[in-house]
Amino acid sequence: MVNYPHHFIRKQSKLSQVSKTINFANRGMSFEAAINATNNYYLSQKIAVIHKKPTPIQIVRVDYPRRSRAKIVEAYFRQASTTDYSGVYKGYYIDFEAKETRHKTSIPMKNFHAHQIKHMSQVLDQKGICFVLLHFSTLRETYLLPASHLIHFYRIDNGGKSMPLDYIKKNGYQVNVSAFPQVPYLDIIDKNILGGD
Amino acid sequence: MVNYPHHFIRKQSKLSQVSKTINFANRGMSFEAAINATNNYYLSQKIAVIHKKPTPIQIVRVDYPRRSRAKIVEAYFRQASTTDYSGVYKGYYIDFEAKETRHKTSIPMKNFHAHQIKHMSQVLDQKGICFVLLHFSTLRETYLLPASHLIHFYRIDNGGKSMPLDYIKKNGYQVNVSAFPQVPYLDIIDKNILGGD
Repeated sequence: MVNYPHHFIRKQSKLSQVSKTINFANRGMSFEAAINATNNYYLSQKIAVIHKKPTPIQIVRVDYPRRSRAKIVEAYFRQASTTDYSGVYKGYYIDFEAKETRHKTSIPMKNFHAHQIKHMSQVLDQKGICFVLLHFSTLRETYLLPASHLIHFYRIDNGGKSMPLDYIKKNGYQVNVSAFPQVPYLDIIDKNILGGD
Repeated sequence: MVNYPHHFIRKQSKLSQVSKTINFANRGMSFEAAINATNNYYLSQKIAVIHKKPTPIQIVRVDYPRRSRAKIVEAYFRQASTTDYSGVYKGYYIDFEAKETRHKTSIPMKNFHAHQIKHMSQVLDQKGICFVLLHFSTLRETYLLPASHLIHFYRIDNGGKSMPLDYIKKNGYQVNVSAFPQVPYLDIIDKNILGGD
């Protein structure tokens, strides 16, 4: 029998008591950080290889100071032409965008750009698995909405409207955020996209 | 019958005479530009959705000048932790790196970093299609080498050696570069990877 020091046991039991209610939101973690942590978990556990793409930047001027590495001294952010996350899961191509809103009943469609919608449509044409993860921070609820339903809604008036939470609930799936991994979206893919439904 | 103006017919026939020998190399196009052009072709023809990832950059300082957009004034290049290209083709996850060398009999393995090799190995574990495109600019020959063979060679002495062209020829496939698309690597995937062989 292993003789655990008393304080270790106390810590352990405290942790297990609260573990069901800990999630990234009440730990002050941003939604993006929670997704990155989830992807790191998937990678380390050999479950999936999914990365966030680097932010696209237009480099204008680079200095080469003596005895040091190249220094970018003028550059600008460019708008992404694809989604933020992509990778491979059991041979399937995975592609998604993540958005957070404080609104309680809908998410403004201005969160999605025309070229991102086009990219999602192109991915679906190639039989990729494509979706958005939507986090309602005030409600502390997270949903996975298949890209087909996002595209459908976007095309009603070219992204002018807000997408109601009811529409998301009807066509998407709630992700049960947890302590570890924080945003287990592949559970939804397994159950509802690959496994049929 | 359509009545083509005379000069148009002349142009057409001149073009078809030389089209078999035009390729990106003798047009002064870089290998990377040729791959990007190929990916644009695949995208526009709805053949595949494959993009080059943005260059990863470490942003240190951003200025917000009045009445203009955010300006990055201090940033540095970071080493890529994955490969440069990824996307989806007929539902398959595609992932590759492209390298060019002026050497005639081998390519230095220092072109590939340890974390890129690790990434390729992770992608293969997830049943992604992963490879490198190697362009021997002096020879004007381009090869597709499946990642498994690159990883195998890299592990002999942790990337210290140069990989001989003979090894690449034995374990890879020559890509017949052409006028359009410039580097039709998906032909190789179709024939030799998906089609069995």
